[in-house]
Amino acid sequence: MKLARFWWKKQEYCGIVEGDSMRILKGDLLDTQEAGEQLVPLNEVALLPPTYPTKAVCIGLNYRAHAMELKYDLPDEPLMFIKPSSCVLPPNEGIVYPPLTENLHYEGELAVVIGSVAKNVKAEDASSVILGYTCANDVTARDIQKKDVQWTRGKSFDTFLPFGPWIETDIDLDDARIVTMLNGEIKQDSNINDLIFKVPELIEKITAVMTLYPGDIILTGTPSGVGPMQVGDKVMVAIEGIGELANTVKR
Amino acid sequence: MKLARFWWKKQEYCGIVEGDSMRILKGDLLDTQEAGEQLVPLNEVALLPPTYPTKAVCIGLNYRAHAMELKYDLPDEPLMFIKPSSCVLPPNEGIVYPPLTENLHYEGELAVVIGSVAKNVKAEDASSVILGYTCANDVTARDIQKKDVQWTRGKSFDTFLPFGPWIETDIDLDDARIVTMLNGEIKQDSNINDLIFKVPELIEKITAVMTLYPGDIILTGTPSGVGPMQVGDKVMVAIEGIGELANTVKR
Repeated sequence: MKLARFWWKKQEYCGIVEGDSMRILKGDLLDTQEAGEQLVPLNEVALLPPTYPTKAVCIGLNYRAHAMELKYDLPDEPLMFIKPSSCVLPPNEGIVYPPLTENLHYEGELAVVIGSVAKNVKAEDASSVILGYTCANDVTARDIQKKDVQWTRGKSFDTFLPFGPWIETDIDLDDARIVTMLNGEIKQDSNINDLIFKVPELIEKITAVMTLYPGDIILTGTPSGVGPMQVGDKVMVAIEGIGELANTVKR
Repeated sequence: MKLARFWWKKQEYCGIVEGDSMRILKGDLLDTQEAGEQLVPLNEVALLPPTYPTKAVCIGLNYRAHAMELKYDLPDEPLMFIKPSSCVLPPNEGIVYPPLTENLHYEGELAVVIGSVAKNVKAEDASSVILGYTCANDVTARDIQKKDVQWTRGKSFDTFLPFGPWIETDIDLDDARIVTMLNGEIKQDSNINDLIFKVPELIEKITAVMTLYPGDIILTGTPSGVGPMQVGDKVMVAIEGIGELANTVKR
């Protein structure tokens, strides 16, 4: 099931994607997935971020080849950082190239969407707090990330967290290709089964530290192949079974 | 003027501190500071965090002597990291000593409370987006902070962000003593005028990156003298002109 949030005729709705249509839900997707009667053509809606997270907990260096390309040691525990809610960007909206950086990078990632309050959740119970999965782009000012040592500033500019296009509640985490394309050219090409720390373990490790709330998201790390974007570029993160998250870069 | 948020008779209120009383405000302190008629004795209320921030933007190594005691180089720009809203703890509540750490530290800090949406604010206009100031404790699992290199995990445990007791709208940033006491003994003793990056510059540098929302807070960094806390300890952060933030440490 694909759960989306969107604008249509100047109102916000939640819906289920059915082919080329959106079936409007009877409530918010975090509260109910009960379908209503009304169908809206997909091409008439403007997608919103599927949730309004209080935070995005991001995992660094969770694919071996990416840690190598950035010359970082592999962490022996999931490496966490946080992107604040002020970074959130809807699908199809413009990533702003900040004047403070000269090296703006894409990072295509699988995002886990939390469905219920989660604290001290064991890996074997992780599925009980997961609503579903979506695509995300952990946009990064690489020069600032390297200079600051702390990654927060280089990853927390407004618009640096596009995610969507919707939440897929059922995907096969053991075999899902993840691809990032820049202007139609494949730049990152991996599989979710290459994650060093798998989703259930991430849930356990993160919730041992902090409470996750419904709508919060976990960015699970990016594969190798990161690289720069320029103003005017179109970047797309596609995950098998979910869909495609597309954004352009603007000034 | 001291603006507070509190529970009284099973309801949440905002108020202005007047001696030993709280004068109830006509609305939320982020919306109005208009005083009502009703006075409540201070000793009948339970203080809440003065705001519900979407994020706390924290500044590292902003006092020279503290950077030296932790053996970090002084940054040439404000070093930012984020504590998520899930860390927030009210005054007088217990800081939970997490089983994952063996070295839990206090860090007394001045917190700036944001009053209006702030993006790309110049230093000379900073006062227009500041509601006031309060005390904060940037509680830190020092062993995890050092081990991870990234500071997020060691600083983001639930209860690691006590702040309060209330917001003082007028303090003298050019001369305000800041003291942290552990079980009544002075451990940190400095002055806000020792900040390397001053409050207006922090506002400019942070809002050049990310939007701040009403109720968001900036933790401006801690002076030297950080050290460990044990279960049962009472920690107090006191800033001249504001008041005292007291918390105990529990399992």
